[in-house]
Amino acid sequence: MSDGGVATRPATEVVGVELGTRRYDIVIGSGALEELGPRLGELAPGGRVMIVTDENVARCHLERLERALAGHVALAPSVIVPPGESSKCFGELQRVVEEMLDAMLERGDLVVALGGGVVGDLAGFAAAILRRGVRYVQVPTSLLAQVDSSVGGKTGIDTRHGKNLVGAFHQPALVVADTSLLDTLSPREFRAGYAEVVKYGLIDAASFFEWLEGSWREIFAGGPAREQAIAASCRAKSRIVASDERESGQRALLNLGHTFGHALEAATGFSQRLVHGEGVAIGMVLAFGYSVRLGLCKPADESRVRAHLEAVGLPTDLAHIEGDIGDAESLIDHIMQDKKVERGSLTFILARGIGHAFIARNVDAGDVREYLAERLSAR
Amino acid sequence: MSDGGVATRPATEVVGVELGTRRYDIVIGSGALEELGPRLGELAPGGRVMIVTDENVARCHLERLERALAGHVALAPSVIVPPGESSKCFGELQRVVEEMLDAMLERGDLVVALGGGVVGDLAGFAAAILRRGVRYVQVPTSLLAQVDSSVGGKTGIDTRHGKNLVGAFHQPALVVADTSLLDTLSPREFRAGYAEVVKYGLIDAASFFEWLEGSWREIFAGGPAREQAIAASCRAKSRIVASDERESGQRALLNLGHTFGHALEAATGFSQRLVHGEGVAIGMVLAFGYSVRLGLCKPADESRVRAHLEAVGLPTDLAHIEGDIGDAESLIDHIMQDKKVERGSLTFILARGIGHAFIARNVDAGDVREYLAERLSAR
Ligand SMILES: NC(=O)c1ccc[n+]([C@@H]2O[C@H](COP(=O)([O-])OP(=O)(O)OC[C@H]3O[C@@H](n4cnc5c(N)ncnc54)[C@H](O)[C@@H]3O)[C@@H](O)[C@H]2O)c1
Ligand SMILES: NC(=O)c1ccc[n+]([C@@H]2O[C@H](COP(=O)([O-])OP(=O)(O)OC[C@H]3O[C@@H](n4cnc5c(N)ncnc54)[C@H](O)[C@@H]3O)[C@@H](O)[C@H]2O)c1
Ligand SMILES: [Zn+2]
Ligand SMILES: [Zn+2]
Repeated sequence: MSDGGVATRPATEVVGVELGTRRYDIVIGSGALEELGPRLGELAPGGRVMIVTDENVARCHLERLERALAGHVALAPSVIVPPGESSKCFGELQRVVEEMLDAMLERGDLVVALGGGVVGDLAGFAAAILRRGVRYVQVPTSLLAQVDSSVGGKTGIDTRHGKNLVGAFHQPALVVADTSLLDTLSPREFRAGYAEVVKYGLIDAASFFEWLEGSWREIFAGGPAREQAIAASCRAKSRIVASDERESGQRALLNLGHTFGHALEAATGFSQRLVHGEGVAIGMVLAFGYSVRLGLCKPADESRVRAHLEAVGLPTDLAHIEGDIGDAESLIDHIMQDKKVERGSLTFILARGIGHAFIARNVDAGDVREYLAERLSAR
Repeated sequence: MSDGGVATRPATEVVGVELGTRRYDIVIGSGALEELGPRLGELAPGGRVMIVTDENVARCHLERLERALAGHVALAPSVIVPPGESSKCFGELQRVVEEMLDAMLERGDLVVALGGGVVGDLAGFAAAILRRGVRYVQVPTSLLAQVDSSVGGKTGIDTRHGKNLVGAFHQPALVVADTSLLDTLSPREFRAGYAEVVKYGLIDAASFFEWLEGSWREIFAGGPAREQAIAASCRAKSRIVASDERESGQRALLNLGHTFGHALEAATGFSQRLVHGEGVAIGMVLAFGYSVRLGLCKPADESRVRAHLEAVGLPTDLAHIEGDIGDAESLIDHIMQDKKVERGSLTFILARGIGHAFIARNVDAGDVREYLAERLSAR
């Protein structure tokens, strides 16, 4: 990447997600949005495009996106949903799908999901079921969405039983991660997304984790390290997704910290008390802690994970969650309803150390309950 | 098939739907239901099964199915939806999915759709999106479902914009068509399903159509010809689906009579004024009539199609629909919203004769409107 003063568009990096006939590019870089018009024109010559976004993102970036697309594709009226996890519901799904039908979106047209993971999951799912499948493009605007949710084709909504229990595998046709969009993201949301960046290091890239320990200030401040971290995360996710599109094996590693994390999100009612990445941060520490308890992992590794997440300002302990989160029994109930539960036995992602995560099947629910009870009493 | 007096279970016929890793069997025959228990046990060893059905079918056959499954699989409480097209909606979809989650159905479990096309489309779609995809088994109970909707993996619901506009491709793991279930079907519904049987002859099997002209009385009365007709229809559908699972080409032939038919169903509010197969019957005559108008097809072929459908008691003309169906303009509007419309140009299935249907693209909407106006004025 050049730091020179020449007034050309900054270089973008392209990562391929190799899924045969469903392969697609992830375009990463500051200003990547300006490439979107021509690329959509190529994807859907003569086609129409409908942008789905949320109120916050619309305020900051919708006009810029509409300008970038003007002249390249015909735009249907944009659909704007309320911000937050609560939009991932049947009601909003129906509304978005019906607005697509009102606009007479056809099979050859495109949906553009402009927003964080909520918009990506909702709009992607709506595209998946509209006319049994319309293509969509992810334009992630949160750090979490740029490094995680926009890549891999998992789409869906929540129900009162839990998160992401209803959905489809539907790969995007293109992902464009313009890092300049992150400038308007709140520090809290940026930190939450950073938890997923750390996750890739913890799964199988100890040296990336080490690099993060040294580079996080630069990543949070913006600049080349930020884009490097995002590109490295996309490469990591892309590799795992390409090897296991439907999560029948290794892809489950991406759930590190998520089984505990989802239970905590459920326990806090999917509210602003705990956003997704924060739940994942605590969940990853819990997963390392439980691995230590089972004698699989050195206590020093748990401490190092905790220390790094704490350094950037993420919560790392049940005690960091304000208000009531119920008892160990109710947390286990949330875990049992999670879709990673098969035939009543628990599957967790545990670790033998930093960069050495693995899928542990047949984890004893009773023992996990006891572990959670201990952690709760230390609260 | 043996007519002998030996008290063994009647022979069933098995038709394979060859879709590689998604291949499955269609088991056809009187008493085939009794094979279901062992087969489900094999599909989901130790798994759980949830039956979805409608009130009419539940009254006639639910107990028998539950008895047939007892001892082979664990049954979750059955879900019963109101009968009729209006159950193919977001509200019922959400209810069915949430009942599945209440019952803690997991990825390895099975959904059984016991009913006509409505139950099959709705339960199949619910299975498609539950936890991003759970397997399901079709147990079709209407003639239409046995010869058409249960095979091929198209699932979905309607919206106020039209039929089947929201859905998924999700192949069943097995189809069991027990012809004895048809004994409780009303004559009107049997006739409606018969329209789809005739369709296979009209598409590419003139000799099958000829056989139907001679055998329809026996088919309606029950007996070997009925099972032969159902098996032949399943073979026809299976062959087309295997060659074009996602309807990017030849599968569209199955829409013969359906573009007109759907418009008529929409014009009658998807009510009992016109059931699906009746719309298809009129639609097929309209498609042949329009082919004649374009000079593609002999008038004698149109008459022969009309005569056969009339002989069995199906409606064949707009004049046979009671009450208001709007004008040509509003019928064309319904057609334009249909999902087979691409980039504003109309695609129809037309015919060069009986057994010689083909996909006609770029059909002129104005000319179709005029044709419909003429047919309406003859009403
Ligand atoms: N599909 C997947 O593979 C996958 C993976 C991980 C997470 N997820 C899902 O992602 C969701 C969480 O994503 P998220 O953290 O992005 O949440 P989000 O979409 O709710 O975004 C967080 C908040 O930031 C705002 N925001 C987003 N971008 C902004 C910007 N550039 N400027 C100003 N405000 C902005 C949003 O309006 C929202 O209020 C969860 O629902 C989770 O289940 C999905
Ligand atoms: N998925 C596909 O490929 C496909 C293909 C064709 C049609 N379809 C869909 O199928 C639906 C029409 O199917 P249908 O005609 O079976 O409608 P249906 O499911 O509504 O059944 C018709 C009526 O017969 C009753 N019934 C069904 N089986 C019975 C039995 N054995 N005894 C007594 N009553 C019984 C039902 O309760 C209902 O009242 C439409 O929604 C259509 O869109 C789907
Ligand atoms: Zn996550
Ligand atoms: Zn049909």
